[in-house]
Amino acid sequence: MKRFLLALMLVGTGTLLVADEGMWTFDNFPRDVVQKRYGVRVTDQWLNTIQRSIVRLETGCSASFVSAEGLVLTNHHCVATCLADNSTPENDLVAAGFMAATRDREIRCQGAQASVLMETQNVTPTVTAAIGSVQPAQVAQIRNQTLTRLETECEEASKKSGDPRACEAVTLYQGGQYWIYKYKRYEDVRLAFAPEHAIAAFGGDPDNFQFPRWCLDMSLLRVYENGKPASTPTHLNFNWNGAADGEPTFVAGHPGTTERLKTVSQLKMQRDLLLPFWLIRYAELRGRMIQYSKTDEEAARTAMDYLGSIENSIKVRRMQQLALLDDRMMAQKDAEEQKLRAAVAKDSSLASARDAWDAITRAEQRSREIHIPWVWTEGGAGFNSDLFFYARQLVRAAEERQKPNEQRLREYTEGAMPQLKAALEAKQPVYPEFEQVKLSFAFERMREYLGPDHAIIKSVLGTKSPDERAKELIEGSELADPAVRLELFEGGKAAVDASRDPMIALAKLVDPESRRLRTIVENEIDGPERVAQQAIAQARFKVFGTNLYPDATFTLRLSYGAVSGWVENGTKVEPYTRLDRLYERTTGAPPFALPKRWLDAKSRLDLSTRANFVTTNDIVGGNSGSPIVNAAGEIVGLAFDGNIHSISGSYWFDAEKNRTVGVHPQFIRTALAEVYQATALAQELKIR
Amino acid sequence: MKRFLLALMLVGTGTLLVADEGMWTFDNFPRDVVQKRYGVRVTDQWLNTIQRSIVRLETGCSASFVSAEGLVLTNHHCVATCLADNSTPENDLVAAGFMAATRDREIRCQGAQASVLMETQNVTPTVTAAIGSVQPAQVAQIRNQTLTRLETECEEASKKSGDPRACEAVTLYQGGQYWIYKYKRYEDVRLAFAPEHAIAAFGGDPDNFQFPRWCLDMSLLRVYENGKPASTPTHLNFNWNGAADGEPTFVAGHPGTTERLKTVSQLKMQRDLLLPFWLIRYAELRGRMIQYSKTDEEAARTAMDYLGSIENSIKVRRMQQLALLDDRMMAQKDAEEQKLRAAVAKDSSLASARDAWDAITRAEQRSREIHIPWVWTEGGAGFNSDLFFYARQLVRAAEERQKPNEQRLREYTEGAMPQLKAALEAKQPVYPEFEQVKLSFAFERMREYLGPDHAIIKSVLGTKSPDERAKELIEGSELADPAVRLELFEGGKAAVDASRDPMIALAKLVDPESRRLRTIVENEIDGPERVAQQAIAQARFKVFGTNLYPDATFTLRLSYGAVSGWVENGTKVEPYTRLDRLYERTTGAPPFALPKRWLDAKSRLDLSTRANFVTTNDIVGGNSGSPIVNAAGEIVGLAFDGNIHSISGSYWFDAEKNRTVGVHPQFIRTALAEVYQATALAQELKIR
Repeated sequence: MKRFLLALMLVGTGTLLVADEGMWTFDNFPRDVVQKRYGVRVTDQWLNTIQRSIVRLETGCSASFVSAEGLVLTNHHCVATCLADNSTPENDLVAAGFMAATRDREIRCQGAQASVLMETQNVTPTVTAAIGSVQPAQVAQIRNQTLTRLETECEEASKKSGDPRACEAVTLYQGGQYWIYKYKRYEDVRLAFAPEHAIAAFGGDPDNFQFPRWCLDMSLLRVYENGKPASTPTHLNFNWNGAADGEPTFVAGHPGTTERLKTVSQLKMQRDLLLPFWLIRYAELRGRMIQYSKTDEEAARTAMDYLGSIENSIKVRRMQQLALLDDRMMAQKDAEEQKLRAAVAKDSSLASARDAWDAITRAEQRSREIHIPWVWTEGGAGFNSDLFFYARQLVRAAEERQKPNEQRLREYTEGAMPQLKAALEAKQPVYPEFEQVKLSFAFERMREYLGPDHAIIKSVLGTKSPDERAKELIEGSELADPAVRLELFEGGKAAVDASRDPMIALAKLVDPESRRLRTIVENEIDGPERVAQQAIAQARFKVFGTNLYPDATFTLRLSYGAVSGWVENGTKVEPYTRLDRLYERTTGAPPFALPKRWLDAKSRLDLSTRANFVTTNDIVGGNSGSPIVNAAGEIVGLAFDGNIHSISGSYWFDAEKNRTVGVHPQFIRTALAEVYQATALAQELKIR
Repeated sequence: MKRFLLALMLVGTGTLLVADEGMWTFDNFPRDVVQKRYGVRVTDQWLNTIQRSIVRLETGCSASFVSAEGLVLTNHHCVATCLADNSTPENDLVAAGFMAATRDREIRCQGAQASVLMETQNVTPTVTAAIGSVQPAQVAQIRNQTLTRLETECEEASKKSGDPRACEAVTLYQGGQYWIYKYKRYEDVRLAFAPEHAIAAFGGDPDNFQFPRWCLDMSLLRVYENGKPASTPTHLNFNWNGAADGEPTFVAGHPGTTERLKTVSQLKMQRDLLLPFWLIRYAELRGRMIQYSKTDEEAARTAMDYLGSIENSIKVRRMQQLALLDDRMMAQKDAEEQKLRAAVAKDSSLASARDAWDAITRAEQRSREIHIPWVWTEGGAGFNSDLFFYARQLVRAAEERQKPNEQRLREYTEGAMPQLKAALEAKQPVYPEFEQVKLSFAFERMREYLGPDHAIIKSVLGTKSPDERAKELIEGSELADPAVRLELFEGGKAAVDASRDPMIALAKLVDPESRRLRTIVENEIDGPERVAQQAIAQARFKVFGTNLYPDATFTLRLSYGAVSGWVENGTKVEPYTRLDRLYERTTGAPPFALPKRWLDAKSRLDLSTRANFVTTNDIVGGNSGSPIVNAAGEIVGLAFDGNIHSISGSYWFDAEKNRTVGVHPQFIRTALAEVYQATALAQELKIR
């Protein structure tokens, strides 16, 4: 029970920390706590250097600049799509790895974008004023309009100043704060180095979220400007010795999502509907993909990246489900909620928050009612196909672009257009047989969940079987061709209306129902919940003070901690692994087969070299690729995973057992200098 | 909330029924309630005729005699294995259906057995006396020895009397009662008629557990004795008009499993571990089977039966999970438990029950600890292969048969030997590619859950991949041949020890660990739980009286009810469907494609013929194939499913919405007389 207590002491009371908890914004980093706990003085300059060195990969990862010439360190699994997109049956970069012989041989990652957070601006007063006086059902719309307006103003201003920024509205503390984050964005991202998948993901899915571990989950990208390596004078340097056991460590990056501030009724929605739904869906999809992969090598190659992400999702959700099914945790969350509600009831200045929890419960009830039709049409479970995804984007973009900017769906505003266009014109391969597996699956399950007599199913399938219908759509569509997509995008509504592409026709067919359900979600669920959450957030500040961190939102955060093992079932888990055990665990069969380069190099290597290690830092998915830095701001590791206990971090922080798993600098140095003999990169990284 | 109340009023208080609840034993059927509620007087003679007419198919279904010459009515899905086993790529009986032109062309269902319950004997005093004085850890063993002894004595006595019976010990009310059930067993079961799968399971998985419905889910078997149709003077006759809306109906059969008397800690084990585990496992297996089925027609044919059972399991467990995640239901169960505990605390004669709930909670905690290793070795999740199953049976039979009868594992006693031998010598096909899909899946997931460094995984896989290892085992094993199996069985331990079959070797390899875990379950979980459950059951009788029904145990039960639709989201669902709508729903693509015979017959048929219908009877899986009879004891329907609300029937009875779904006699008559023109069968069934 102690583990729950630690998390809730902070969230609930703002008590001085006794655990290395929190993914903190840079403006509210708990410097005093760190000073007291670790004797480290975190300065403005230190924070500033870290901030400017951290890179966000828009596909969902973190990274950092590691040279003055745009070199970027991240995980291997963060470039999996880039490797797959640039592979062919004859030249499989996932299996073989990649090293650019010279800089001009670095290869473009289609559609990849890298962003650096340059500046932030608190716009809470503007947004709360705008939504303060409207009805709950209008909140979502007014809020969206306000955020779009603020983003547009910011981008226009930056363009005028000659230093263009991508401006994004950020909601923190569930609506307790609104910010505009201003990014410098690199659109030309190239791959410089990636090891073989077999060493990067040694142990595969069985070892995923496990420790001890031996993964060289690293890669090196380079950002370009005007066709040349970008100048990045602010960057991080390696400390090749790494950090000692107990030494303080910091992880900076972009953690994706946590749900630690959610109410009990929101957590129960997760527990009762969302997690069971997605687990069953992913598990079947995993089975289909694995069996499909056995049909031939090309099937295996093309499905590999997707399968890996499904397997990761399953492991995460299984552990999340276990966490939420622990009634003791739910009781603790409930007690905490009751405590805050009692404080609110007594404080007349917080009257607006009194109904907030019940309002959320009502909204969650509505969400339960429409979850199934929504999730299959608008919520991402149905139409499981890249071609359909392009079609929907084209159909919606055509329609939305006819509207004034502020009235558009958020993902079709002027600010979002460059990214959308980049995605549409990216030369990413589409594999028809792989598409067939996904789309046929989606149709079959849509029919199961909605029922064969549902209007959407009748109009989507007609009298065809899921297989037949998927086949005719995929064979008939030309949207795999970036030129066709770009033409439809540039042609706008007239071009989309004139299109006879069957996937476009399907996207048009389902759009009214899909939008109808989206509107219900926005007006009857998200809107009222935002109002309520904002009231709760403000009550929490008032009652517990501002020494709180917001839930993760894939925006820049900093966590503190130290190198440390933990105790598992009474046995101490040491914080470091070494190369000797990597070789001992090698069986010759995937995912425990080592690449030939590593087998050949064995006799040359110091087998006491550290491979992976763990720290107490509080991170979550999205932090993949984050540098682990020491008090001097040097890189002492590369975060690529958490241990199995880190998954409950979605809901609370388990200080005793939650651990960040990182690649040790010794492993990186050994790989680059001795195994791959990457002379130029080693020099650029100052490996002696 | 009303629906929970109804279930719990009965279980909790024994109050006079207000709902058609309960799967009652024949000795304790609530005749007074039925008389009062429906004005039907249930006589001893009526009960006796029903009991002698009901057949249990040992594969897990119910059935009934419908002629004096051994003709047996059951569902199509209850003979799916028989159809598949007798099919070839050229002659697919699942797709084409089967009708024996003459009786001598009826085909043997390999390994099938049919049983009729002739007599029951209450042995509660004997068993409770035997286990009354031993420690909880010894209870399982002593109980098993006692039951085996009672079974053996019963069988020997019946053999001497010249009328041999199969005697089975039955535990009712979680240990509140013990009985010996004496069956007449038919070992020669043949198939007389089955329609095409497409009409039997029209709507397939999407329609499974749904209503309205249009399935001709029927088949006709015949039991033989000494090579001739058995004489079955006691049998049921059809009323071809069926039953009117509101007319009382009775369902007799062998419901499989309910868990209505389980404690809250047992239900939470279901909710937290078992259901999530099996759902994920089945979902992935479904995906693998579906994708495998797409590789060619033969793959589809051989995987079809197995896939169908997986899909059924998924649907059941999804709904069970939803039921247990309803915190209101859990709170009701908890309140009911507290009420009984309070009564126990006050009654000094029930002192032995005071610790019972906590004892179960402790046992469930132990169960949680060992669930993963147990489920993959002994619990049925791992070694997912018919060949391995044979191997384990042979290895264990060899070992167990060296022990005195009473000290053997329960499934290897002398009483169980005939069934075991019949299973081993049955000529059921083994498909190596299909085996490969299953076993490779099992190995891969065992490795995921146990971890690659687990001793069992290392010894089972060595340095091979799951695919490689499965392949060498399946290719190397000769256990697909019934003659090889029989030789090993007859040869006993010497033969098994001398065998070089790799599957036998694998079964031997894992047996010590598998047995070790089984012993933990028996001694530390099942044993203590039995003691506690028995104390609770006796307390329940004392506090609430004996007007209670036991949980389902795949033994003979009778439920009462009436033809009735229900209200779904404010809309009345009519109790009958008709043929006209069947034709309207036909799309031409499976599972909504009608067989040619039905398309051709359309113009000849009366489209107002009733197809399926619903009643309020309380049934559960295992009741499939049960006759639905009227007050006169005539068959007015053939139970084949429940509606979606029936699935929560595992935990409580929802009187408002839980419905039995049956084939209407008009549909059966039309099929036999007009569509299939089964003249001889029609005559035997007295269709005019």
